[in-house]
Amino acid sequence: MTRLLLLGAGRSSSSLIQYLLRHAATESWFLTVADVAPAHLVPVLAAHTEYARAVPFNIQEEARLDELVRDADIVVSMLPALFHGVVARACVQHRRHLVTASYVSEEIRALHDEAQAAGSLILMECGLDPGLDHMSAMAVIEDVRARGGQITSFHSYCGGLLAPGSEGDNPWQYKFTWNPRNVVLAGQGTAKYLENGHPRLIPYQRLFAAATPLEVPGYGAFEGYANRDSLSYRAPYGLQDIPTILRGTLRRPGYCAAWHALVRLGLTDDSGRLGNAATMTWRELVEAYLPVSVPRKATATELAMHCADYLGLPFAGPEMQRLQWLGLFTDKAVGLADATPAQLLEHLLTEKWQLQPHDHDMIVMQHLFGFELNGQHHRRTSSLVVLGDDATHTAMAKTVGLPVAIAVRRLARGKIGQRGVVIPTQVELYEPILTELAADYGIRFVEEETAG
Amino acid sequence: MTRLLLLGAGRSSSSLIQYLLRHAATESWFLTVADVAPAHLVPVLAAHTEYARAVPFNIQEEARLDELVRDADIVVSMLPALFHGVVARACVQHRRHLVTASYVSEEIRALHDEAQAAGSLILMECGLDPGLDHMSAMAVIEDVRARGGQITSFHSYCGGLLAPGSEGDNPWQYKFTWNPRNVVLAGQGTAKYLENGHPRLIPYQRLFAAATPLEVPGYGAFEGYANRDSLSYRAPYGLQDIPTILRGTLRRPGYCAAWHALVRLGLTDDSGRLGNAATMTWRELVEAYLPVSVPRKATATELAMHCADYLGLPFAGPEMQRLQWLGLFTDKAVGLADATPAQLLEHLLTEKWQLQPHDHDMIVMQHLFGFELNGQHHRRTSSLVVLGDDATHTAMAKTVGLPVAIAVRRLARGKIGQRGVVIPTQVELYEPILTELAADYGIRFVEEETAG
Repeated sequence: MTRLLLLGAGRSSSSLIQYLLRHAATESWFLTVADVAPAHLVPVLAAHTEYARAVPFNIQEEARLDELVRDADIVVSMLPALFHGVVARACVQHRRHLVTASYVSEEIRALHDEAQAAGSLILMECGLDPGLDHMSAMAVIEDVRARGGQITSFHSYCGGLLAPGSEGDNPWQYKFTWNPRNVVLAGQGTAKYLENGHPRLIPYQRLFAAATPLEVPGYGAFEGYANRDSLSYRAPYGLQDIPTILRGTLRRPGYCAAWHALVRLGLTDDSGRLGNAATMTWRELVEAYLPVSVPRKATATELAMHCADYLGLPFAGPEMQRLQWLGLFTDKAVGLADATPAQLLEHLLTEKWQLQPHDHDMIVMQHLFGFELNGQHHRRTSSLVVLGDDATHTAMAKTVGLPVAIAVRRLARGKIGQRGVVIPTQVELYEPILTELAADYGIRFVEEETAG
Repeated sequence: MTRLLLLGAGRSSSSLIQYLLRHAATESWFLTVADVAPAHLVPVLAAHTEYARAVPFNIQEEARLDELVRDADIVVSMLPALFHGVVARACVQHRRHLVTASYVSEEIRALHDEAQAAGSLILMECGLDPGLDHMSAMAVIEDVRARGGQITSFHSYCGGLLAPGSEGDNPWQYKFTWNPRNVVLAGQGTAKYLENGHPRLIPYQRLFAAATPLEVPGYGAFEGYANRDSLSYRAPYGLQDIPTILRGTLRRPGYCAAWHALVRLGLTDDSGRLGNAATMTWRELVEAYLPVSVPRKATATELAMHCADYLGLPFAGPEMQRLQWLGLFTDKAVGLADATPAQLLEHLLTEKWQLQPHDHDMIVMQHLFGFELNGQHHRRTSSLVVLGDDATHTAMAKTVGLPVAIAVRRLARGKIGQRGVVIPTQVELYEPILTELAADYGIRFVEEETAG
C-alpha cells in the first residue's frame, strides 16, 4: 500500500482529489486529505472510506505536519505557495516525496542536494502555469531539436478566462477564476523580455496599453500583455541564446485598454490607504481623481463624460463602456473604510466579476515558436483550450490538479527516477502526463506548423 | 548637573552637538554622545572633555541602551526613525525625557498614557519637517484666531535645495542633501489633499506633471508637488473643517516636468530587479524602454531624439536638456548588477547630484494661508530660507538640529511642563524656539499679509 498525503483541499483540489480517489483502489493507495476545514470533504470521501480519510490540519502545527509527513510515502501540497518551504523540509527530513503546482522558491531550490541525498523527489511546478506550460513547450522544443531545427523566437501566453457561453453581457468577458487580488495588482513593476536580441522593458503605466492580438483556432480573438519576467524561462528550457522570448497573460480583446484606463485613473495603486469612509461613493472616488471640478448635480453620464475627456477616450468607446458597466460613476458606496485604491477596486470587481454557479471557466494557453530548419523559417503554434465541467470541476481545477495527480500515480508506481528539486522539463516526466491528459481528459494541445 | 544623552551623531547632528557644547558649561550639563562609530567625534569634543564624552554604541545592544538611558536625565535621539520605538520605551521605563526630530509612529503614540504616568516628556517632530513646519504654521494659525479670523485654506511646502551660488550649470538646480533613496522614490503611491471641500487624489504617474509654481521673496521661483497625505495635518493644527489643505515638496522650476519624464520612462520603479549586468550602459537601458528599435550605431544625440519622440517632448526643450545632462543616452555603465530601475537611477544621481565640499545647501519653507476676517478675504504668506554655513553646518543640520537643541535647553531648565507624547504645536513650546532661532541664528520666517 502507498500512503498519499494531500495537504490543503481548497477549490482547485477538486479534480486532483477525484483522480486520486478513482485510482486509489486499483493502485492500492490510502489517501489522507489534511485540510484546515475538512467538513466539506465528508460527502466527497463518503463512498471511499476504505482507502481515504480527511483529517483536520493547520499548517501552523509543526508537530502535526511532522507526524503526517512521517506517516506518508508521497506528499502532495495544494497549500498556498508560501508554506511549501516548511512542507518540503519535512519531506526531505523524513525522506518522503513531494509534488506541488507551485514555483520553486529560493528556499526550496536550496534543498536540492539534501533532497537528492535523502532520496526524495521534490517535484515542483507540475500544475498549469507553472506546469503544463513547461511540458507543452518542451514537447515542441524537443521535437524541433530532434529534427535539427533551431528555435529563434518563443512567445507563450496563458489565461484563466470564461467559456464563451458564460461571457453574457459582461463587456470585459472576464470574471475571477483565480485570486482577485493578484488580478488587480497584475503587472505592477517592470516587464522584461527579449525581442530580436534587444532587451525590452515595459513599465507598468505602459503595460496594458501595449497588448498583442492573438488568435486561437475555434475560440476567436484574444490579447496578451507581457508578464514580469520572461527571461527566467530561457535556462530551464535550454534556450539561453534565443533572441526573442516573451511570456504573457491572455485576456479577451479590449480588456487591456480598459484596464489601462483604470491604471491611469490611479485605481490600481496598493501602496497607501486613502483614509476614506466606507460610505464614500464610487462617483466621489472617481471625481477625486479628476483634475477638473465636476458640478455637484452632474448625472452619472455627465461624470463619465468628464472622465472620458480627462482620459482622452471617446465617451461611447469600448473603454468607457467597460468602466460604466462596472458602475464607477454611480452612487454605489465603495464599502471599505480606509482602504487602498486597489482594495476598493478589488471589492467592486469581486461583486461584478463573480463567477455564478452556472458559469463555466476556460483555460487558454498558446505557444508561438519561430525556428530555422534546413535554411528555412518555420512557425509552430501550440494551443490548448480547456473548458470547465461545472462549478466544482473547473478548467482551472482540472489543469492545475490533473498533472499533479498523474505525476503522483507515476511516482507511486516507481516510474520516476529523478530525485532532488525537479520541474517537469524532462521528456520522461512530461510525456506520460501529456499523453494521459490527452487520452483520458481531452486536455490536448492543437499544433499547427507553417514554413516560410 | 543635568545629564544629556545624544544617541546617533550622523551628519545632521553637527549643529545640534555644537549648540549643546556651547551651552554645556553655563547650563551645567554633561553630554554623552553615543554613536556606532564615535571616532569622528574626537576632534569635535576635544576642547570640551570636562563636560562631554563620546562612547561607542550600537542600537542592537539592548542592555547598553538601558544603561545609557538610566544614567541620563534627557535623551536626544538622532537615530533613524525606526529605532525610536525601542528608545522611547527605555525612556518611559526609566522615567527619562526624550526629544527627537522624527514623526510620531503608531508605536510611540501608544506610549502616551504610560509616558504621562511616568512623568516623561516624549517630544517628537521637533526638527525641520516635521518640526519648524508645525511651529511656524501654528504661529500664524494662532495669530489669525486671536484676531477672530477663520482659516479657509492652507498650502505648505518645504524643500531641501541648493543655495543659488551652488547651483552651477546643473539644470536640475538640485543635489542630494538628504537620503537619495527617498528622493528617487518620492511621491510613489497616491497623493491626497482637499480643495474647496473636494477630496483630491493624484496617482504617482500624474504627480510630477501637476506641479504648482511658487515664489519666495528674494529667492525667486520654485515649484511644489503634493505630498502623500495632506489630510493628517488637519487634526494636530485644529483645522478639522478647513476646505483646502495641501502639503507639498519644493523644487526649482522645471525639476518636476523632467522628473515626470523619468517616471514615464519607468526609471523610478523599485518593485523588481532587472537581472542586468553592471556593465550594461545607460544607453542600452534607455533603449530597452523605448518601444521603437534604435539603430545600433545611433549617436547619443540620435538616441535622445528617439526618446524625445517617444515622450512627446521637444528635443531641445528643458526636460530633455535635464535628461541629457544626467548622461542617460551615453555609454556610461549602469554600475550595479541585478538592480531595480530606481536603484540604477539612484546610483547615477548619487554621482551627478553629489554635494561638493564648497557647495552650500538651502532650506526653503513656505506656508500660504487664506482666511476670512471681518467679512473680508485675506492672504498670509510665511516664508523661511536658511542657507548652509559650510559642508558641516548645512542648512539641513541647522534647521533639524537647532529646534531639538533649544527644546532640550528649555526642558533642562524645567520650562516645559507637558508630559507624554507631544509635538510642538502648543505656543509654550514653539514660541521660545522660534524666538531663539530668529534672534541667535537668523532662522526667521518672513511674513506678508494682503487683504482682498
